[in-house]
Amino acid sequence: MTENRLITLTTDFGLKDHFVGAMKGVIVKICPDVNFVDISHKVQPHDVFEAMMIFKNSYKYFPDRTIHLVVVDPGVGSNRRPLLVYSENQYFIGPDNGVFSPLFQKEEDVLVIDITADHYFMKDVSYTFHGRDIFAPVAGYLAKGVDLKSFGDPVTDYIKLDFPKPKAPDKSTLEGEIIYADNFGNLISNVASSHFQTFLNNSAQKTFKITIGNNEINKISQYYDEFPPGNLCAIFGSTDHLEFSLLQESAEKKLGLKPKEKVIIQFS
Amino acid sequence: MTENRLITLTTDFGLKDHFVGAMKGVIVKICPDVNFVDISHKVQPHDVFEAMMIFKNSYKYFPDRTIHLVVVDPGVGSNRRPLLVYSENQYFIGPDNGVFSPLFQKEEDVLVIDITADHYFMKDVSYTFHGRDIFAPVAGYLAKGVDLKSFGDPVTDYIKLDFPKPKAPDKSTLEGEIIYADNFGNLISNVASSHFQTFLNNSAQKTFKITIGNNEINKISQYYDEFPPGNLCAIFGSTDHLEFSLLQESAEKKLGLKPKEKVIIQFS
Amino acid sequence: MTENRLITLTTDFGLKDHFVGAMKGVIVKICPDVNFVDISHKVQPHDVFEAMMIFKNSYKYFPDRTIHLVVVDPGVGSNRRPLLVYSENQYFIGPDNGVFSPLFQKEEDVLVIDITADHYFMKDVSYTFHGRDIFAPVAGYLAKGVDLKSFGDPVTDYIKLDFPKPKAPDKSTLEGEIIYADNFGNLISNVASSHFQTFLNNSAQKTFKITIGNNEINKISQYYDEFPPGNLCAIFGSTDHLEFSLLQESAEKKLGLKPKEKVIIQFS
Repeated sequence: MTENRLITLTTDFGLKDHFVGAMKGVIVKICPDVNFVDISHKVQPHDVFEAMMIFKNSYKYFPDRTIHLVVVDPGVGSNRRPLLVYSENQYFIGPDNGVFSPLFQKEEDVLVIDITADHYFMKDVSYTFHGRDIFAPVAGYLAKGVDLKSFGDPVTDYIKLDFPKPKAPDKSTLEGEIIYADNFGNLISNVASSHFQTFLNNSAQKTFKITIGNNEINKISQYYDEFPPGNLCAIFGSTDHLEFSLLQESAEKKLGLKPKEKVIIQFS
Repeated sequence: MTENRLITLTTDFGLKDHFVGAMKGVIVKICPDVNFVDISHKVQPHDVFEAMMIFKNSYKYFPDRTIHLVVVDPGVGSNRRPLLVYSENQYFIGPDNGVFSPLFQKEEDVLVIDITADHYFMKDVSYTFHGRDIFAPVAGYLAKGVDLKSFGDPVTDYIKLDFPKPKAPDKSTLEGEIIYADNFGNLISNVASSHFQTFLNNSAQKTFKITIGNNEINKISQYYDEFPPGNLCAIFGSTDHLEFSLLQESAEKKLGLKPKEKVIIQFS
Repeated sequence: MTENRLITLTTDFGLKDHFVGAMKGVIVKICPDVNFVDISHKVQPHDVFEAMMIFKNSYKYFPDRTIHLVVVDPGVGSNRRPLLVYSENQYFIGPDNGVFSPLFQKEEDVLVIDITADHYFMKDVSYTFHGRDIFAPVAGYLAKGVDLKSFGDPVTDYIKLDFPKPKAPDKSTLEGEIIYADNFGNLISNVASSHFQTFLNNSAQKTFKITIGNNEINKISQYYDEFPPGNLCAIFGSTDHLEFSLLQESAEKKLGLKPKEKVIIQFS
């Protein structure tokens, strides 16, 4: 394939209304032989951070030239800009609200276009549904082979969100937080395995104590099934971040823990 | 493409059970190179009106020759007829329960077939799942190129639902109602912008007061972000109907408003 | 088509997280022209029996050479084996936890491979997401044409789940149970129509009384619409099992009946 015929979708449109269907109709009308992969339409309404977490953990598994539509757009209809981003040989289309921040880490490798070429938009652009009227047709024409630069001029003043990073109040303490709870009630923190390993290597006795809520853990598990049910276990999950799980139960529900909960790791 | 290879699906089958998968399996077995777009499987069980609202707002964005399966079928197994409708260069397949009423406005342009050619059905038709046993295989054979008229004879006595229309108790008053609440809690009314505009043009001072529940609004907003959070705003949304929204909140939940709620517009 | 290009997915990953999207990305990267059909991602987390019910009622409608991914995997990361099953001219990929038991009824016609060829896996296999790291790439390579036997050696000591069968405490009594409640609140039992018919044929007066909860029924209905609303009806549904329904209402919610509820049929 020399064309960009795979389009993924990440939105807060839900699965009941006509929104996602209308977007796909617009795209297919422009480029009939496109293939869709729905990443998620169940982003909490208007939650740009959550959309970022979900798209960030999926896009890198897709082939080169995939087009990722990420439309969580609380500022729709205002003067926030529509963006087309080219990064890591993939395309990303969505509003300029920081959702693409993970791509902006290595800015020298990223091309960001402010989409202004309105002849690629639907004829009457609504003020409330740019997913259908702007983002979908742009994705359709991009899939059809229209060149990236035809959609507008490059910009560098796009919005970047601060991703909450773990703090190190002293040399033997890491303070992170829960940033996401998944479908199984696993609680994913912002502590990456590399963070953790660096602190562990520098510690004297190579031991540690993790505190989350009223729970203390001093071992990292390898897999969920390692402990009997009822034990909260800490594990480096599939996104390589420290997460907290209960075997075959929801840690989120059972322990009443949620995103924003503090995770304190004391090394000794 | 000379064939009809795109099939959309709108049902109340939900996303957990095997129902939608079984339908798609039946179709793919008949016509392997079909493409599916799911519009919605989360129509409230048996809610024909809701299915109508969702399919009505999506079908027109699809290319010519798209096949739309709309299966919300409280009368499955009884003697209600299965229909195949050709309208606006697109195909529609589903039960004769009024769900296709929006297509029947211009009756001279619509061809409605009573599907009777049971050699296109599954061998043993169940009494409870015509989605799999009748509608899916008919869609599959239509996608494969079987002619419309092979499925049965035209009928004209199909069921039409009354869409609730706004009333005009006097020359300066429009009385509508909320007909749908979307994923964001926006409340969509049956007042189209053309209705509103006609009354506004005929009014003396070109002003108006909209009453919904305990709320009064005397301005139409252009986009959601126009007002600070907490203000109920009235806006002509992406379906060109008057809708009511709270910035980044659900108007439905916050104000306790729902479909059937009266919307009264007093022009002066 | 000589290749296996259709892949269905049944998981407990839910529709919000990145899990399903990541799996599809991995597959498409290996085999770009694959087509996906989602059967369900809303299996109750870790509920192998429910996954079995859903895949069992859908796979047989798909064409030969379809690949079915069934990933409900409470033992992920432990030493439970990944399996590739060939049965009824279709392929099935998932963990060895009994989910494929319906295929193992006629063991002489089934080929079960213990997937060990780890050069087909993702480079760094996580301990918590074999859906992405093992099952998806194996599906991708199988779709691409890699031979079944390249993935590992046949085994016969795979896990089989006991499907709850109706009991016959005496010649005129069948004791079954509810095994599934669908999106409409219909309650599906484990009593197949053949079971029922055999007992009925052997009964003296060809009459029967079905007891479920506080309800008694002595007639089998043909379709939902046969009775006025409010009457619990017994019907042989689209899976040919005895099920209990309320017209346009949820029998599950209205009558407080659930899976595991006893169904007693007394023939006389």
